[in-house]
Amino acid sequence: MADARITADPTRMRVAVLGAGSWGTTFAKVLADGGSSVAVWARRPELAREIMQSRRNSDYLPGINLPRGIQSSSRLPEVLEGAEQVYLSVPSQSLRENLRIVRELVPEGVPVVSLMKGVEKGTRYRMSEVIVQELDISPDRVAVVSGPNLALEIAKEQPTAAVVSSVSLATATEVALVATNPYFRSFVNTDVIGTEFGGVLKNLIAVAIGIVDGVGYGENTKASIITRGLVEMTDFAVAFGGRPETLAGLAGLGDLIATCESPLSRNNTAGRLLGQGYAYGEVIAQMNQTAEGLSSVAPILELAASMGVEMPIVSQVAEVLAGTLNPRDIAPHLTTETNEPQGE
Amino acid sequence: MADARITADPTRMRVAVLGAGSWGTTFAKVLADGGSSVAVWARRPELAREIMQSRRNSDYLPGINLPRGIQSSSRLPEVLEGAEQVYLSVPSQSLRENLRIVRELVPEGVPVVSLMKGVEKGTRYRMSEVIVQELDISPDRVAVVSGPNLALEIAKEQPTAAVVSSVSLATATEVALVATNPYFRSFVNTDVIGTEFGGVLKNLIAVAIGIVDGVGYGENTKASIITRGLVEMTDFAVAFGGRPETLAGLAGLGDLIATCESPLSRNNTAGRLLGQGYAYGEVIAQMNQTAEGLSSVAPILELAASMGVEMPIVSQVAEVLAGTLNPRDIAPHLTTETNEPQGE
Repeated sequence: MADARITADPTRMRVAVLGAGSWGTTFAKVLADGGSSVAVWARRPELAREIMQSRRNSDYLPGINLPRGIQSSSRLPEVLEGAEQVYLSVPSQSLRENLRIVRELVPEGVPVVSLMKGVEKGTRYRMSEVIVQELDISPDRVAVVSGPNLALEIAKEQPTAAVVSSVSLATATEVALVATNPYFRSFVNTDVIGTEFGGVLKNLIAVAIGIVDGVGYGENTKASIITRGLVEMTDFAVAFGGRPETLAGLAGLGDLIATCESPLSRNNTAGRLLGQGYAYGEVIAQMNQTAEGLSSVAPILELAASMGVEMPIVSQVAEVLAGTLNPRDIAPHLTTETNEPQGE
Repeated sequence: MADARITADPTRMRVAVLGAGSWGTTFAKVLADGGSSVAVWARRPELAREIMQSRRNSDYLPGINLPRGIQSSSRLPEVLEGAEQVYLSVPSQSLRENLRIVRELVPEGVPVVSLMKGVEKGTRYRMSEVIVQELDISPDRVAVVSGPNLALEIAKEQPTAAVVSSVSLATATEVALVATNPYFRSFVNTDVIGTEFGGVLKNLIAVAIGIVDGVGYGENTKASIITRGLVEMTDFAVAFGGRPETLAGLAGLGDLIATCESPLSRNNTAGRLLGQGYAYGEVIAQMNQTAEGLSSVAPILELAASMGVEMPIVSQVAEVLAGTLNPRDIAPHLTTETNEPQGE
């Protein structure tokens, strides 16, 4: 059986979403519920067919009905043809190869929006940098979306705020207007560096929270780690040119709190297993999805070291991963790391 | 049966704690576990007897064994005699009358430490201001303790960090050295205004979190409210002379997160009942302990108005309390309150 063909509604803005995982599909719903005609690229034809025929993505968003405005195909040219905005939600480590495939298909001059959070292994480039390099477009036309955005809650239409960031305020605004609906509100900023690093770094702090959760510590400890973790995140982002206000906002603190409090977070789960005494290798074997936070620890610490930024919490997560620090010892160290008077 | 007599260990520092509720008793344990000889004043003689004889405070800290270093009496002169530091943990609205009773009993020149969070009704003074007024001592000898400090977790010896604040760094340090033990670490600062207002304001945001919890919204909404709530708290405290760093630290953000995530918080519970549709009067009737956050809403909004500070979240909590805003409508307003680009 062949895929159904995508038939765009000519009265609506046409947007493309590449990637039909839980976040890509949720964002397609956000866009469709905001009035756009959305074409979603699914790598597997059977998933594209399920979305077209059953209006569901049962592997990634069980129980969620997809709106009429969403169509799906496994054929990239069909998805990208006539797209006025292109959203990317593929695994961060496969972004570059995916971009090479679509390079000739992305319509010229349209905003390209990253829904991804991560840095490329080896090169340590942020997602927006990889997009600029591989599509050979101006950073002015690239935007990133971040914030306290647990996919399943948004798919259930719970009120959520997000940040759309681009070095061009015009591009950020253009995207934010499309990525807004009654339950999803997009704010804009021009600090792409702070916004992207916020999304990467919060995963590392979420692993630390998972660890102390696994050990059995409570809310006091976790609140201290989030508070001190935000300081580390801010120091790091500012060293690379980000703005402290961005980290204090939805794309920093907001995303950090939502991730740390989500029982569904993979980073949280990975940390919890470590805290319960499982070794790194066992945790990897036990989880069937990647925990972005675990693989970001080493590259982030290398980047931090290159700029002379100290990250005591992330460093201790690295020690737990390496098996050189007992998870039970992480909390007292975390809460006693600052020797200077607090708040001075 | 008479109270047992307090017999202080002459080799240890002698400290007094006035108030044997859950926080006063927990802090007495913190101090005793840090090596001090602690005398706790309990208003009711039977509670003092239970602490002396059973080493328990079963009403306020069920299941927690109290260390040998704690003694208790309902006789104030006995508790305060020879005290080298005095800690206060009485209900915030009864602080002034309690201070009038102990005025002649507090040894001269010793640090007086507030463990309380609140502003006095009518006068709107902070707790440290009431202490300075009623004991007629220099602000240099007054300190306040705050931070992510859920009492029951500390009583269970879970690792916790706190802030001791005094306009005199020497006094803050003197107190912090005594209020430190293997599971409780005190940092110091000199921003009493920011530290005290942080402890008051977080209760109001916790009510808002409770409301959206009661309505059934999730972690994205709550993370947005905490993020925007911290902005309101900071604007308020800075308007009154506090420092933004204090609000970004353990006494602001840390305390806010712990309070908002605690299922035991009275403010959270009050908010949840409101979110479920109970009227203010019903909530008051249903709760047998005071929720400090509810009674602080009006005085804090008056203070904010006097300085021209906008507090959209707290204002909406006030509307829910007044019955003029449906709790279901609070979240979209909260997350769309900022019209300026986020993070700019």
